[in-house]
Amino acid sequence: MQIDIISVLPELLHSPLEHSIMKRAQTKGLLTVNLIDLREYGLGKHRQVDDYQFGGGAGMVMMVEPLAACIDRLQESTTYDEIIYLTPDGKTLNQGICNRLSLNNNLLLICGHYKGIDERIREHYVTMEISIGDYVLSGGELAAAVLVDSLGRLLPGVLNDETSALFDSFQDDLLAPPVYTRPAEFRGWKVPDILLSGNTPKIEDWRNDQAMERTRQRRPDLLGDED
Amino acid sequence: MQIDIISVLPELLHSPLEHSIMKRAQTKGLLTVNLIDLREYGLGKHRQVDDYQFGGGAGMVMMVEPLAACIDRLQESTTYDEIIYLTPDGKTLNQGICNRLSLNNNLLLICGHYKGIDERIREHYVTMEISIGDYVLSGGELAAAVLVDSLGRLLPGVLNDETSALFDSFQDDLLAPPVYTRPAEFRGWKVPDILLSGNTPKIEDWRNDQAMERTRQRRPDLLGDED
Repeated sequence: MQIDIISVLPELLHSPLEHSIMKRAQTKGLLTVNLIDLREYGLGKHRQVDDYQFGGGAGMVMMVEPLAACIDRLQESTTYDEIIYLTPDGKTLNQGICNRLSLNNNLLLICGHYKGIDERIREHYVTMEISIGDYVLSGGELAAAVLVDSLGRLLPGVLNDETSALFDSFQDDLLAPPVYTRPAEFRGWKVPDILLSGNTPKIEDWRNDQAMERTRQRRPDLLGDED
Repeated sequence: MQIDIISVLPELLHSPLEHSIMKRAQTKGLLTVNLIDLREYGLGKHRQVDDYQFGGGAGMVMMVEPLAACIDRLQESTTYDEIIYLTPDGKTLNQGICNRLSLNNNLLLICGHYKGIDERIREHYVTMEISIGDYVLSGGELAAAVLVDSLGRLLPGVLNDETSALFDSFQDDLLAPPVYTRPAEFRGWKVPDILLSGNTPKIEDWRNDQAMERTRQRRPDLLGDED
């Protein structure tokens, strides 16, 4: 999978991409992430990429021309399955969307800043708008990092059995059950006896019950959701 | 505001904390972010921080002892308003939670990895569990970065008028209206006439209508939500 990311702050993404799953996915050759600095397509000698918004009001807007020039150039060599704009008013990301997106070969992510990007880019280039949640960030870079991480770990071969994605929260519409490791007792706080019993079928039953109970208590909406 | 972050991969957070709003908030002395490497509290000469889960199954669990020792040490010098564990089965983050959390003085964030942390830490130390969305990440670090960014920009004095948080999506339960900047026409794609009219009251009406219409189309749930 190839993911290209357009940003005015590509350096913000360096350390997240150089560690953990994202590093592993890239080292294994299963994921290529290219950071594209939008300022290279900025206007004039100051490489302008943003300007005041029409109609007045606080906040700068990322200009249509640098983004159009940048995307045009990238499309000369790559055909994107989706051109994704990360924005709080996009479709809320969930594991189902991650699963579907992870099947693509080429994605282009656009990180907004300030008040966002000129609407004409959204109308004429963007094919999908994603929000990682109902809160506002200072830019789309962290949202892009979240999306890359969530997709990267789903690519076949990236995770080993020890970290298999199949048993994660949301993959079966249930939250994960509680987990414990050694020691069995710490400051009088004990691990549930069942987990020390060695009775695998009963342990599985207990985990299913816990997962169901936790989901019912914390996220009843997941149980009724057919999406 | 002081935010301490416990992680087995603190270096993953370096570049997000060194740029944009998070850098500005720290430079202005309005936000202090301390990264704590959990491995310093690891057991034995290999600084072990995780182990196989009781009851069997794929995935490592972060051990209770290093986390307890780390939190105990931090609490010797800091009284935390909240000890927050970032986990997919936590309460889903939204702007209201961000607003409330931004009023705190001291927060401790715990980043999980692998299958998560030993449940006993959640029972005995953690005061709040937060999920940034219904998807699984390879660790809590990016979730912590998202939370720090969303809080940092709300601290008084961090944003200037140009980027004021007051007009963002979600602050009034409406999505933001479309924005445009120069040029007024590009490849025949025109900016709406109203925005070029100079008629500020009518522009405000248009923006309100657009915000309402966009919210109705994309996120009708926000309009009926009393939270």
